[in-house]
Amino acid sequence: MSETRMPLSSDEIVLFDKWWFAANYLSVAQIYLLANPLLREPLTLEHTKPRLLGHWGTTPGLNFLYLHLNRIIRRDGRNVLFVAGPGHGAPGVVASTYLEGTYTEYFPEVTQDTIGLEKLVKQFSFPGGIPSHAAATTPGSIHEGGELGYSLSHAYGAAFDNPDLVVACVVGDGEAETGPLATSWHSNKFLDAKTDGAVLPILHLNGYKIANPTVLARIPSDELVALFRGYGYAPILVEGHEPAAMHQRMATAMDDAFAQIAAIQKAAREGGETARPTWPMIIMRSPKGWTGPKTVDGQRAEGYWRSHQVPFTDLTNPGHLKLLSDWLLSYKPDELFDGNGTLRPEIRALAPQGDKRMSANPHANGGVLKRALRLPDLRDYAVAVDRPGATDGESTRVLGTWLRDVMKENLGSRNFRVLAPDENNSNRLNAILDVTNRAWDAETLDYDDHLAPDGHVMEILSEHTCQGWLEGYLLTGRHGFFSCYEAFIHIVDSMVNQHAKWLKTSREVPWRRPIASLNYLLTSHVWRQDHNGFSHQDPGFIDHVINKKADIARVYLPPDANTLLVVARHCLASWDRINVIVAGKQPEPQWLSLDAAIKHCEQGIGIWEWASNDAEGEPDVVMACAGDVPTGETLAAVSLLRKHVPDLKIRVINVVDLLTLESRTQHPHGLDDAMFNSLFTLDKPVIFAFHGYPQLIHKLIYKRENARNFHVHGFREEGTTTTPFDMTVRNALDRFHLVLNVIKHVPSLSVRAAYATQAIHDKLIEHKLYVAQYGEDMPEIRDWKWS
Amino acid sequence: MSETRMPLSSDEIVLFDKWWFAANYLSVAQIYLLANPLLREPLTLEHTKPRLLGHWGTTPGLNFLYLHLNRIIRRDGRNVLFVAGPGHGAPGVVASTYLEGTYTEYFPEVTQDTIGLEKLVKQFSFPGGIPSHAAATTPGSIHEGGELGYSLSHAYGAAFDNPDLVVACVVGDGEAETGPLATSWHSNKFLDAKTDGAVLPILHLNGYKIANPTVLARIPSDELVALFRGYGYAPILVEGHEPAAMHQRMATAMDDAFAQIAAIQKAAREGGETARPTWPMIIMRSPKGWTGPKTVDGQRAEGYWRSHQVPFTDLTNPGHLKLLSDWLLSYKPDELFDGNGTLRPEIRALAPQGDKRMSANPHANGGVLKRALRLPDLRDYAVAVDRPGATDGESTRVLGTWLRDVMKENLGSRNFRVLAPDENNSNRLNAILDVTNRAWDAETLDYDDHLAPDGHVMEILSEHTCQGWLEGYLLTGRHGFFSCYEAFIHIVDSMVNQHAKWLKTSREVPWRRPIASLNYLLTSHVWRQDHNGFSHQDPGFIDHVINKKADIARVYLPPDANTLLVVARHCLASWDRINVIVAGKQPEPQWLSLDAAIKHCEQGIGIWEWASNDAEGEPDVVMACAGDVPTGETLAAVSLLRKHVPDLKIRVINVVDLLTLESRTQHPHGLDDAMFNSLFTLDKPVIFAFHGYPQLIHKLIYKRENARNFHVHGFREEGTTTTPFDMTVRNALDRFHLVLNVIKHVPSLSVRAAYATQAIHDKLIEHKLYVAQYGEDMPEIRDWKWS
Repeated sequence: MSETRMPLSSDEIVLFDKWWFAANYLSVAQIYLLANPLLREPLTLEHTKPRLLGHWGTTPGLNFLYLHLNRIIRRDGRNVLFVAGPGHGAPGVVASTYLEGTYTEYFPEVTQDTIGLEKLVKQFSFPGGIPSHAAATTPGSIHEGGELGYSLSHAYGAAFDNPDLVVACVVGDGEAETGPLATSWHSNKFLDAKTDGAVLPILHLNGYKIANPTVLARIPSDELVALFRGYGYAPILVEGHEPAAMHQRMATAMDDAFAQIAAIQKAAREGGETARPTWPMIIMRSPKGWTGPKTVDGQRAEGYWRSHQVPFTDLTNPGHLKLLSDWLLSYKPDELFDGNGTLRPEIRALAPQGDKRMSANPHANGGVLKRALRLPDLRDYAVAVDRPGATDGESTRVLGTWLRDVMKENLGSRNFRVLAPDENNSNRLNAILDVTNRAWDAETLDYDDHLAPDGHVMEILSEHTCQGWLEGYLLTGRHGFFSCYEAFIHIVDSMVNQHAKWLKTSREVPWRRPIASLNYLLTSHVWRQDHNGFSHQDPGFIDHVINKKADIARVYLPPDANTLLVVARHCLASWDRINVIVAGKQPEPQWLSLDAAIKHCEQGIGIWEWASNDAEGEPDVVMACAGDVPTGETLAAVSLLRKHVPDLKIRVINVVDLLTLESRTQHPHGLDDAMFNSLFTLDKPVIFAFHGYPQLIHKLIYKRENARNFHVHGFREEGTTTTPFDMTVRNALDRFHLVLNVIKHVPSLSVRAAYATQAIHDKLIEHKLYVAQYGEDMPEIRDWKWS
Repeated sequence: MSETRMPLSSDEIVLFDKWWFAANYLSVAQIYLLANPLLREPLTLEHTKPRLLGHWGTTPGLNFLYLHLNRIIRRDGRNVLFVAGPGHGAPGVVASTYLEGTYTEYFPEVTQDTIGLEKLVKQFSFPGGIPSHAAATTPGSIHEGGELGYSLSHAYGAAFDNPDLVVACVVGDGEAETGPLATSWHSNKFLDAKTDGAVLPILHLNGYKIANPTVLARIPSDELVALFRGYGYAPILVEGHEPAAMHQRMATAMDDAFAQIAAIQKAAREGGETARPTWPMIIMRSPKGWTGPKTVDGQRAEGYWRSHQVPFTDLTNPGHLKLLSDWLLSYKPDELFDGNGTLRPEIRALAPQGDKRMSANPHANGGVLKRALRLPDLRDYAVAVDRPGATDGESTRVLGTWLRDVMKENLGSRNFRVLAPDENNSNRLNAILDVTNRAWDAETLDYDDHLAPDGHVMEILSEHTCQGWLEGYLLTGRHGFFSCYEAFIHIVDSMVNQHAKWLKTSREVPWRRPIASLNYLLTSHVWRQDHNGFSHQDPGFIDHVINKKADIARVYLPPDANTLLVVARHCLASWDRINVIVAGKQPEPQWLSLDAAIKHCEQGIGIWEWASNDAEGEPDVVMACAGDVPTGETLAAVSLLRKHVPDLKIRVINVVDLLTLESRTQHPHGLDDAMFNSLFTLDKPVIFAFHGYPQLIHKLIYKRENARNFHVHGFREEGTTTTPFDMTVRNALDRFHLVLNVIKHVPSLSVRAAYATQAIHDKLIEHKLYVAQYGEDMPEIRDWKWS
């Protein structure tokens, strides 16, 4: 602890206390008051809210830190972004942004006077107002403070490729217990002191969560320091509760931290230092609910879990009303705000100016900084497809060549990163490494390949960290592409929820500008995890995403390389969306030329006439497919049917944009009913081969006229380690089961179909025997070609 | 590093090498060979598998550790369970269990001779065989090795309440990068040295993941040691590659670690020591693919990422075939196995006997140890309900009183734990703390409440850790109950997937016995997160769970306290299921007496005749509901309809067991069609008020005759901080919107209905104005009672 230095004069301390008191005052006022915001008349029950909501416990600490960061910004002109991990401390964050004037600039009706203050206090946690945690409505925030665990990865994401930015990230000791947060400290091994900005983590040891002490507040100091040294930081401890001493300690700590950051950056940028630096961090230990009531009804409040949320409620209890009044007046509001209710100028002067205010930092409204990516012409990457199904290709490998050049064309702008949890090459996107490296600032050995501090491929074996980095990067106005094994993207389900909510809310905030979409490539998917087995087989992320708002969720299932290129290009040019692309990485038949792919993807769904034989009228059966493996099996089934029952009229429909199936009233991409009916008929059987869980299709089409005749094949949760084709057989998605189902649902088929049924059953038996004996698929399956 | 001690004689080292060579040999053989398992004839292409799968890299290290743990078990008679975090090292785990003889006992066809060896090697990663990672099929395993991050929380879960058990948990340095693993090191603050067993974590620094170096292998030694000291462990380093020296080092490390464990347990159990101990851990740094080929085709293999999976493939390359043959023969199989292919007795003697073998540890097949919970009679806890809707109750608080006595009745058996991420009291289950404490072994202050090392309520702010602990606890034969905010249970989506897969697979393994079900109580649910706002509002976990196998997933939506009691009792007595219960914690109307609740829950769905007026025949409309808030709104809507259109015949159906809606062909709880039709009619409109996303109901009922007439109200992702009733209005789940939809879909209603429509619209406007002004719901809403 740096006890000995006194960077602040006693005058400064008086002034600092005033700012801090003003922020604390407005925080308490937001939680409790409906009117009479400056207590210019005696407090009555009518001035208070009927429902008391919000989190006081962390708030005074956040206010204290905000103030001390402002001191550095004013003095050194640093460009600082503030991330409040304890997001429920929104009363404090909002109060600080109001004191800085930004809140009024963004929400002009919340004026810098008593009337504005009344609006400010009323709206907090009030219907139609603002939530109790930092959110898209909070100026200066890129971080939703609801679900915990992601503040630090968001902070690092914001710092990447922003060399002048320092992201001050407050981590609560509750949040610090989450897994995603616990591993995100290691982000310092992926940051380049030369070309990236800095992150200053501030661990706030408040001591308690809702009802329990926190782990990090209850381990000995030597363990605590060892832990963060182990994470690769130089911790600076600030501990206490007496304000004047704490101001000196925090000012000293901030001086040291920012000096260390400056020194590290200078050494890297001017001195040629390449070793990973030991970045500073601050550990602040202060009482929960600091400056709040020490006791309530005779029970410990300050420094205890009872201060976590609202320290006391039931204001019909006159003792409580008095306690509130005394508490508010202890901050001496009349010394802070003038007769009009405007913050006194000498206090206001503690805030930085203009964009230097953390609440006005343009990086926190990334859309204003966003520049469109330069996207190379697809023609130079497309697979030549002279005839559908004649050649094989590896879709994601082809995509990798295009992504390589997306990376190359935008490297100068440093606004595009590709992320994967140690799977970039496994997902066959390795071409990207021809033009950039993997970000890596830990020890590097001479035989390592493609590791460099400024690499733009981010790989850590943590889906959470990849997701958090990417969100932070997007929210500060850049672009990204996340590839992941399909089954394990569920690890970030909950983070996706929160990002979707952020996008929805930010559209309703007039000053928020659209950001680049969150783009996923899910590959190594369920049908081609035959080798890794059941634990790696789960197509349910699609189900998860389509529960999000229709404006936000998009799901694409390109069946081959050229459609994947077209879809990927579309996604990288889109904004404010969550785009999920599912595509295979294994060699597979290629169906569409680039021109055909562009047309097909524009429609999102369409009849493949070259595979159909219903040109003259209504088909006997519609065979629909979505996904690369289902498409291949469908076309193989069509081959078989043509051979066995040539007079059967088949229409083949391929779905790239899954949400075309949903009703137009439910999703903007949904086909209108007339178009849907013209594709799927009003009454013919539809045998639908789907990549995911079959019920999902039923869920999408339940409003459609022909819904009852859809028979969907998909993943039935029957997985194991087996061959690729056997995966489809176990789940009845294979060509043989598709044929059997066609025969079952087209009643007019008769004797010929009966023979076909017998032949198909024989084939299934033959398949099983072959696989059991040889451990691979029959040559006629492996070598099958559409013709 | 403990270089100086030499606990092993040179004869022992020779013997140890032989065991290790045998395990490594069988590992390589499993990956590559189809036949000729002991290379008793020259290796040809026909002896090898057509598809080469599996992970060699981590395997020799696992084999090495297994051997050294066996030394301690034999010497000290310790009871040790083995958890292989790097589960893809299954070739090694399986090889060790085979060498111990257990594999043959569990799978008698895999005999201890050449014929058995041929089966052993063929089945690995072969269709119909076993997966490439430790799984339910692996003797001695409680841990699926597919998705990474959960080994250490599983290990702690196994150790709780098993005072004689030591769980040796190998953590891979890839897995160590995941969030869930990174925080699970802190589990040592929740373990009681006196009444729980011990966990010995072994961090295996292999150096590389699929394609990248690992973070923990590339930080300086002082950071590494500091990190684990900071986590509260005493790390013991074992580093090197020369086998003889490594044997001495590892033997020394194991001696020290087990001696420290014994000393800690003695101090706690006999010496009265109460301070949290510093448990030992081992950090082993050894080359990836140790003893494998140093180079392949001139490129570095051993100690590099190329050894992560199969170091070389394409055995049609004669050089590769020779490389494989040389590699296998380097282990000198003829010195390890006799002429019959049986492991030589002096090597076999290195394994412990009977249940002491880690592969035969009964804790790894928890079902054999499981004892049913003693469950108190519900009658003593039920809420008195004289008349439906007349009284209010807090469902989860009532449940808490029963759970308190479940805890009390089973405390002697120490086989029941309740878990929550810092939400036990917030979820109103606080009565449990009357009979036990929260588990806590970190610093405790005199004003802390209900913290104790042997507490059976587990709270850490990590859903991942709660889930991992619980899984480990259940898999070793005990029981548990996990309460969580509904929105944030998505954090463990992916863990739920893996547990569901484990349950499905284990049912197919003849020697696995059923374990207790994984029971969730989701409360603080979407409709009553009005105060915390949009980020806390998500009912989608139900959607996630019902994609699991029908045999496994159960979803219950008890509408009041007594139904919650009945459902909870059912779940705690069930096995091999994932039970999701969604119930509110706020005061709500109580509908059913205990007797009525028992009857209703037995059927899972039923007509509430007391609320219906269709006794004489077919109703005009069916009003169905599932969930506590939807039930309340439905009954309020019925009240309104009776007032405004008294001649309308209404049938009210409540659904407790959601999967009764699904077709009997799809789910064992599904109603048969006749029953479904008799409830929901063939053609009448069904206005369905549902707790979750409305499309889920459509997905469940798509096969039903009357599906097209279902109109479902549910969460439309329209959330914010507002009042409870306004949450329902924003999503059109409220009584007014339900009434409007009834009027819309019952065409026979005429003039009276038009007046009602007008009145309802007025009410909606009045609601909005009232909430905007006062911030709470209108008294007539708050005070509404069914009568």
